[in-house]
Amino acid sequence: MNDSEQAPYFLEEGEVGFVEYQDFLYPEPFHFVSGGSVPELTLRFETYGHLNAAKDNGILICHALSGDHHCAGVHDIDERKLGWWNFMVGPGKPIDTTRYFVICSNVLGGCQGSTGPGSINPATGKAYQLDFPKLTVQDMVKAQTLLIDSFGIDRLHAVIGGSMGGMQALQWVIDFPDRVGRYIALACGARHTAQAIAFNDTGRQAIISDPAWQKGSYDPDNGPNLGLAVARMMAHITYLSDVGMETKFGRKRRHVDQSKEYFDVEFEVESYLRYQGQSFVSRFDANTYLYLTKALDRFDLHSPDSLDTTLSPVAAQGLVVGFTSDWLYPPQGNREIVEALLRIGKDATYAELAMDFGHDSFLVRAPKLYELIDQFLKR
Amino acid sequence: MNDSEQAPYFLEEGEVGFVEYQDFLYPEPFHFVSGGSVPELTLRFETYGHLNAAKDNGILICHALSGDHHCAGVHDIDERKLGWWNFMVGPGKPIDTTRYFVICSNVLGGCQGSTGPGSINPATGKAYQLDFPKLTVQDMVKAQTLLIDSFGIDRLHAVIGGSMGGMQALQWVIDFPDRVGRYIALACGARHTAQAIAFNDTGRQAIISDPAWQKGSYDPDNGPNLGLAVARMMAHITYLSDVGMETKFGRKRRHVDQSKEYFDVEFEVESYLRYQGQSFVSRFDANTYLYLTKALDRFDLHSPDSLDTTLSPVAAQGLVVGFTSDWLYPPQGNREIVEALLRIGKDATYAELAMDFGHDSFLVRAPKLYELIDQFLKR
Repeated sequence: MNDSEQAPYFLEEGEVGFVEYQDFLYPEPFHFVSGGSVPELTLRFETYGHLNAAKDNGILICHALSGDHHCAGVHDIDERKLGWWNFMVGPGKPIDTTRYFVICSNVLGGCQGSTGPGSINPATGKAYQLDFPKLTVQDMVKAQTLLIDSFGIDRLHAVIGGSMGGMQALQWVIDFPDRVGRYIALACGARHTAQAIAFNDTGRQAIISDPAWQKGSYDPDNGPNLGLAVARMMAHITYLSDVGMETKFGRKRRHVDQSKEYFDVEFEVESYLRYQGQSFVSRFDANTYLYLTKALDRFDLHSPDSLDTTLSPVAAQGLVVGFTSDWLYPPQGNREIVEALLRIGKDATYAELAMDFGHDSFLVRAPKLYELIDQFLKR
Repeated sequence: MNDSEQAPYFLEEGEVGFVEYQDFLYPEPFHFVSGGSVPELTLRFETYGHLNAAKDNGILICHALSGDHHCAGVHDIDERKLGWWNFMVGPGKPIDTTRYFVICSNVLGGCQGSTGPGSINPATGKAYQLDFPKLTVQDMVKAQTLLIDSFGIDRLHAVIGGSMGGMQALQWVIDFPDRVGRYIALACGARHTAQAIAFNDTGRQAIISDPAWQKGSYDPDNGPNLGLAVARMMAHITYLSDVGMETKFGRKRRHVDQSKEYFDVEFEVESYLRYQGQSFVSRFDANTYLYLTKALDRFDLHSPDSLDTTLSPVAAQGLVVGFTSDWLYPPQGNREIVEALLRIGKDATYAELAMDFGHDSFLVRAPKLYELIDQFLKR
């Protein structure tokens, strides 16, 4: 077969195909929960499908820590990177773009086009860096409401996300119960465990310990790349599972036969992880990593009141999904959210999927995950 | 009560009390499995109890990655740091110093007095650093036989160790089956999983990425301390369990009330881990960390032949102990060793202890661990 004779996969029927991002500018001051503010706000986003006349078919997808607004399709024929949830979003797929108007925005505080620590502060003409206000998941959600307002959408059909995206989905239905019909939160939890905080702080220390961090005031072209790569390597391990890594890599070796000690790649898993670290550095800002991990560590639906009290405003129908092999956001942390919701009389469902891909299971094309989301959105 | 009126705890009956380390010098060349060699060898060690006339009451204790030769007692009244297994070693304790002559040596390749990458190469007058030969667990054990020889001990009553020490105990009974009567290997395994290799390589990358590493040629007073601290923080998380960390730290916070973002300690678990990283740097050499983690990653009883074949020389009676909450060296990895031993007709027992301290459970004073070792050595 010849390339010129056949359309590439991403242009086939059932795919969203080419997409373009857009920037939403909110020209007014935006106030953070912490008390800080920015004089204006940009959110970069993509949409797929069409908003209907009633403006009631909007679905907001919230991305995870290292994700972005590009969740379906490709940008052009040369840049064929498929969106991170392409298998879930498209014509006839569970998040069906023939039925829904799907919006995905880079999160407030992010580094893929939305206002964050790496953005230029219009008041000073320099990047915010550590002058960026303290960030919470509540701030991310509040910023998303401005984007939703800009479409004239009063009420979303659904808010959906995994990991940090799941926390946003939960925050949406707590803070804006009248504006969401249903929600799906995958691979998240009501709050970080001590272990999750410990991993995040170790990653932050890797960045902060890198002399190139310069107390946050680095030149963007010469940032703490070595520290950020180490942080990402470690975090990536926590996104996988022991079984998944064993199946994929085991103890497979590169061909090496040296009597002298060396610290180059010896095992395949080292090659994979180092590559993950390197490639992350080329697309992510170190200060943003610090801010976002802090927002995750502070997210806590058990505080200041009980989980039941925090969840009491929820009106939307909910689906929370835990994954058996997810040890970063273990099933129990997902399950307890639904237990609380049911205890206080809400309409919520918990599903626990046996998948071996660890925390990243929600990003994996699997029939049972596909079916679960498909049926929940259709019911 | 007054200090002068009462002896300190470590001088009470049932304690080994004051101990001194000694250095064993082997003045001949020592050849490594890799083919490399050092012109002479020093092992730093401590002993407790007395060698009997028959010289058949020797017990060798092997330490873990960050351990050393100081496993019982204290060095002097001012330096009251108890040995790392003091609760297990002493008069009337499971490893009973009234019955056994107990030896614990800093491992070959270590940095607490034994010859390792930080030692001076007598041939050059400079530290070996990366000229130190490639190191394996087999080399560690072979070096220990020289120390045992120096006491005139032909056959040890037992070899005992946890984690890297457990690997040494297994290697002893494989390589020197006539020289050991029984062995106890705790919290180890037949080989590292892909996940364990991944964590080790991330730690190595943290060290290697630190500009102060200088390709291994750092000034010992000015080494890659920041990278080593990050490596240790991460490793320390893997030595604990999620449940243990949750119980000990949960989300306990330092008192902080800042609207600006900050990356100082916010949660107690961060304080604990950062302290672990800092204190490790003051007692450990970075190149040694690289060499020892490599030796661990390469340890593989499934290679070059099957586990059954590798274990076929074993003649000693064995006890292998796994801990339910150990996710770095999971129970399954310990269990499969005994399954293989039983399959090939050896005298071996597996015990799995339900303790919440993760991999470090073997270092924790717990009655069931105490009883288990006590009875196995007495039987």
